[in-house]
Amino acid sequence: MHIAILTFQGFNELDSLVALGVLNRIKKPDWRVTLCCPQVTSMNGVTVHTQSSLDEARSADAVLIGSGIQTRDVVANPELMVRIALDPTKQLIGAQCSGTLILAKLGLLVKIPACTDLTSKPWVQEAGAKVLNQPFFAQGNSATAGGGMAAPYLAAWIIARTEGIEAAAAALYYVGPVGEKDAYVSQALGNIVKYLP
Amino acid sequence: MHIAILTFQGFNELDSLVALGVLNRIKKPDWRVTLCCPQVTSMNGVTVHTQSSLDEARSADAVLIGSGIQTRDVVANPELMVRIALDPTKQLIGAQCSGTLILAKLGLLVKIPACTDLTSKPWVQEAGAKVLNQPFFAQGNSATAGGGMAAPYLAAWIIARTEGIEAAAAALYYVGPVGEKDAYVSQALGNIVKYLP
Repeated sequence: MHIAILTFQGFNELDSLVALGVLNRIKKPDWRVTLCCPQVTSMNGVTVHTQSSLDEARSADAVLIGSGIQTRDVVANPELMVRIALDPTKQLIGAQCSGTLILAKLGLLVKIPACTDLTSKPWVQEAGAKVLNQPFFAQGNSATAGGGMAAPYLAAWIIARTEGIEAAAAALYYVGPVGEKDAYVSQALGNIVKYLP
Repeated sequence: MHIAILTFQGFNELDSLVALGVLNRIKKPDWRVTLCCPQVTSMNGVTVHTQSSLDEARSADAVLIGSGIQTRDVVANPELMVRIALDPTKQLIGAQCSGTLILAKLGLLVKIPACTDLTSKPWVQEAGAKVLNQPFFAQGNSATAGGGMAAPYLAAWIIARTEGIEAAAAALYYVGPVGEKDAYVSQALGNIVKYLP
């Protein structure tokens, strides 16, 4: 099980790295979560090393697209966009905040409403997607989230789809604030269970 | 205003980078937030570049200590510990999860109860600190938090102490999940306002 988290120059630390942290709560030998990118620097100057290449995302079991301040440059780059070849019939696909714009531009949100952040909302709408005023939505193998702190919802959805709801609950419990863990898990799962098959 | 986020080998991405993301919501020329470390690799294999040196933390206006899976190695290293010279009479000091163990070992939690994660709790208690079953606590210039998703509380406390409660609320609103933003801000501020001067 390889989960590639697409992370571009100017990325938002919260989306890519919170998802990565939550997903790594699954401790299985074949469970691999990677930042998928060249070496990139975040919107706040944090430089991270790549763990997988963009081409590896084609064969990943799941792909998450993080957000960032340069996503409009990504979608305006045909050479880069053609390398992001995702297949929702074979892969779980998630996107967050401006990452949702990439899904929309790839034509993967034609019949599926989507979540994104308030800044990206007009761009996602302009790309033809219907934007929902909620933190998480999934249909079939595709999911989107809006707002940095919705990153655990997206990660928990992938865990729930692959390892089951109890594994998702355990991962959320681990990252929840002390003293608020039960309420946190309940809130998070409440956002995703209705979209599970 | 320099806020140094102490980040050691084996660090937890959530604590250091969520705090960094929230703190960078303040857009002022003299507002500087840095990952303070040598080049380090996280508990899940993410390598990040340093933005400031440990010695710069001595003169930082605020210092946050993140957590990680090797914190017990940090506190067992006298040469490293002596370089972490913090002064709560001059600096705002925060720690999260196993980072609280470092504060305890530095003797900064002798008269102050503290928050930490469930795994680190026995080590923090063994180091002489009283551990609370809540996500956040502050007294004077020192604050601690427990659970990865309590990282925004610690960041918001620093913003509230330096830029005011409205700036803290705005930063929390930005990172809150879409459709849950008001509830998120209310929940987070509810944890910190009672500890503001």
